[in-house]
Amino acid sequence: MRLSNYFLPVSKEAPADAAIVSHQMMLRTGMIRQNGAGIYSWLPLGYRVLKRIEQIVREEMNRSGAIEMLMPTLQQADLWRESGRYEAYGDEMLRIKDRHDREMLYGPTNEELITDVFRAYVKSYKQLPLNLYHQQWKFRDERRPRFGVMRGREFLMKDAYSFDLTEEDARKAYRRMFCAYLNAFSRMGLTAIPMRADTGPIGGDLSHEFIILADTGESAVFCDRELLDLPAPGLDLDFSSDLTAIVEQRTKFYAATEEMHDAASFEALPEARRVSARGIEVGHIFYFGTKYSLPMNAVVQGPDGQMVPVQMGSYGIGVSRLVGGIIEASHDEHGIVWPDAVAPFPVGIINMRAGDTACDAACAALYDQFAKAGVAAMYDDTDEQAGGKFARMDLIGLPWQIVIGPKGLEKSTVELKRRKTGEKIEMSAEDALRKVLG
Amino acid sequence: MRLSNYFLPVSKEAPADAAIVSHQMMLRTGMIRQNGAGIYSWLPLGYRVLKRIEQIVREEMNRSGAIEMLMPTLQQADLWRESGRYEAYGDEMLRIKDRHDREMLYGPTNEELITDVFRAYVKSYKQLPLNLYHQQWKFRDERRPRFGVMRGREFLMKDAYSFDLTEEDARKAYRRMFCAYLNAFSRMGLTAIPMRADTGPIGGDLSHEFIILADTGESAVFCDRELLDLPAPGLDLDFSSDLTAIVEQRTKFYAATEEMHDAASFEALPEARRVSARGIEVGHIFYFGTKYSLPMNAVVQGPDGQMVPVQMGSYGIGVSRLVGGIIEASHDEHGIVWPDAVAPFPVGIINMRAGDTACDAACAALYDQFAKAGVAAMYDDTDEQAGGKFARMDLIGLPWQIVIGPKGLEKSTVELKRRKTGEKIEMSAEDALRKVLG
Repeated sequence: MRLSNYFLPVSKEAPADAAIVSHQMMLRTGMIRQNGAGIYSWLPLGYRVLKRIEQIVREEMNRSGAIEMLMPTLQQADLWRESGRYEAYGDEMLRIKDRHDREMLYGPTNEELITDVFRAYVKSYKQLPLNLYHQQWKFRDERRPRFGVMRGREFLMKDAYSFDLTEEDARKAYRRMFCAYLNAFSRMGLTAIPMRADTGPIGGDLSHEFIILADTGESAVFCDRELLDLPAPGLDLDFSSDLTAIVEQRTKFYAATEEMHDAASFEALPEARRVSARGIEVGHIFYFGTKYSLPMNAVVQGPDGQMVPVQMGSYGIGVSRLVGGIIEASHDEHGIVWPDAVAPFPVGIINMRAGDTACDAACAALYDQFAKAGVAAMYDDTDEQAGGKFARMDLIGLPWQIVIGPKGLEKSTVELKRRKTGEKIEMSAEDALRKVLG
Repeated sequence: MRLSNYFLPVSKEAPADAAIVSHQMMLRTGMIRQNGAGIYSWLPLGYRVLKRIEQIVREEMNRSGAIEMLMPTLQQADLWRESGRYEAYGDEMLRIKDRHDREMLYGPTNEELITDVFRAYVKSYKQLPLNLYHQQWKFRDERRPRFGVMRGREFLMKDAYSFDLTEEDARKAYRRMFCAYLNAFSRMGLTAIPMRADTGPIGGDLSHEFIILADTGESAVFCDRELLDLPAPGLDLDFSSDLTAIVEQRTKFYAATEEMHDAASFEALPEARRVSARGIEVGHIFYFGTKYSLPMNAVVQGPDGQMVPVQMGSYGIGVSRLVGGIIEASHDEHGIVWPDAVAPFPVGIINMRAGDTACDAACAALYDQFAKAGVAAMYDDTDEQAGGKFARMDLIGLPWQIVIGPKGLEKSTVELKRRKTGEKIEMSAEDALRKVLG
């Protein structure tokens, strides 16, 4: 993408009302624009990051055997009356009446709707296990939306729902999601720690939040330092195998959010292993058995011919929130430092003297070579001052920068910079291309 | 995807309340499920088609120079008061109050919101031309939603908005969209005819609907037969060139929707060239100049230093409606006949004797070869009767079918069937693979 044709409204000043660094940087880099309290437009740069995260989530969900679909944003109030949550959900539910005065709502989550889909089609245990997921916008009418996309009202969530005949099978489904989440967050460059959590309005008796540590995290969390260094299961994990050991490798260590914190257990740890920090919730998984299937009569026939309510779990990832969470976890004083897998563009090319024939030609040639290799580079072809270009490129945080100027071209070199380390190396354009393509 | 692990709730009966063939077939193939009047879940098979169409639209929009972003579904009422449309829009607008009694609405279109984004950032003609688009769910509270996704209430639309300094530049932007639309619809296997149309609540003085012909179309349309055979401009079109000739090649022929129909002009055509048919609107483009920029004060500085309201157009494609539209245009008595580019899976493999070692091995090997080639095949590995498998595969309409059974394997052959023609050929599995991969 040539910057002169792009829409990248970067601003120098940090907006006064943005309290945390991710919110400030998303506004300064023109990733988002607020359209109302807790409601945002995703401008082109921000949208690209959102899509990268969505795609990683999709790939890891698919790898685990879950099947993608899409439920609507609006739901019928009557469905929620079946589960008893229509009244119970409170003010965070956005209630709507249509032109015929029918009661609807903007879905804050989808347990009822997916249970309704399930009961319409699935009648036998032979159709199980089943895990259906979607990535759709949700609305929760937070009393005080804040922190940009970290606590917005309209937000993008991936929510998956598992269906099994027995509790044992349902717990297997839970473990598959547990492992898929570890892989997905790891691919995004995050260390997400599963912590025993309160089940809240979703219900159930087993639940883990996936938490990334960040000074600006909204809640206090407590865990064993050992958890910080455990590698993700890896993309070659066989999801049909027994995943108990992988899950227990983590759950055997102490880790809890504030609501579930047990000070005595925590203080039993050696002091050096006690991590008391702030955390950002990026995922939340639940096993809740028949909480919805029983009142909504979602039953399947077992091998013995008996009809039994299906065992369910649900599994959320805060896709739009992750954009902010990743910035909280990965930035420096110059701006964002995108992990490679979620960067809006993998590389930026800076033309140090736009208008100079040799510089223009060398930049265009490199840009085209990236395009041929299937890589979308961001090419700063503007005629602005070098200092401003460097600062902007650092601010938007692309993993690699290639600077092309007249002095280097005399020696047939360009400068390759790694954003994360700041390391700069002179090399030929071909070598820089190879290095970035990895 | 192995069918035994998939969620494909196919049913034999056409539902009584589905009046048109696309609605019937989308329900029968388990592509969608109704969750409320005009509100649908996209089940896995339907979701795949929706994503294919969305991706074609994205590619052709990007090729034309438009830039993708994403606006939220909910908007503030005050923005619509600025343009004067808040009251004018009528009952189709879904009006909502949040917990603080603030007036919001579920966006039926986005002229106001994009104008608000534009005026916040763009101040100079040097930042133009600009075309921003998104693909987002919209809501229009139709009095009588019907025909499945063809006239739903919650629907997916691609809407693009162009911004230019002068009317002349804005008309160039209009022509770029005109050509991009022809390419996009052509890639979907559709002949979409641009017809002069009424501008309705969007406003403006220049507007074309893109119409596909189908017996079940909701409106009467009239056009010159010559239009049916004009090829699309092609994917190598240079969008920076003068596109006037391509547009006029079409606009010189008579074509109009009922509202704009001029019987005298139509009847001046030779009778053999008069096409009077039913049509489905799949796209609609508008040039409306300063209709929104003037009241909303979206002004840019021109080369002469004067501030002028920006010239705008908007450009819609009914992404979810297209799924139904394509089925209306491409089906037979056995089911859907997907054009290659939008098929949910390019090929289906039918195992004629699941459980037979040789059949299972041959099917699995072929399935794996497709996967290695990056092609997701649908593999019917169930133990149902052959007749039911054939009927289901025809119904879901994948472009190719490969049937593998014990008799063929004795001769080392499989049967390759082209869904569209019904043609069946025996060949080796390798040849069938090559043929499908094209």
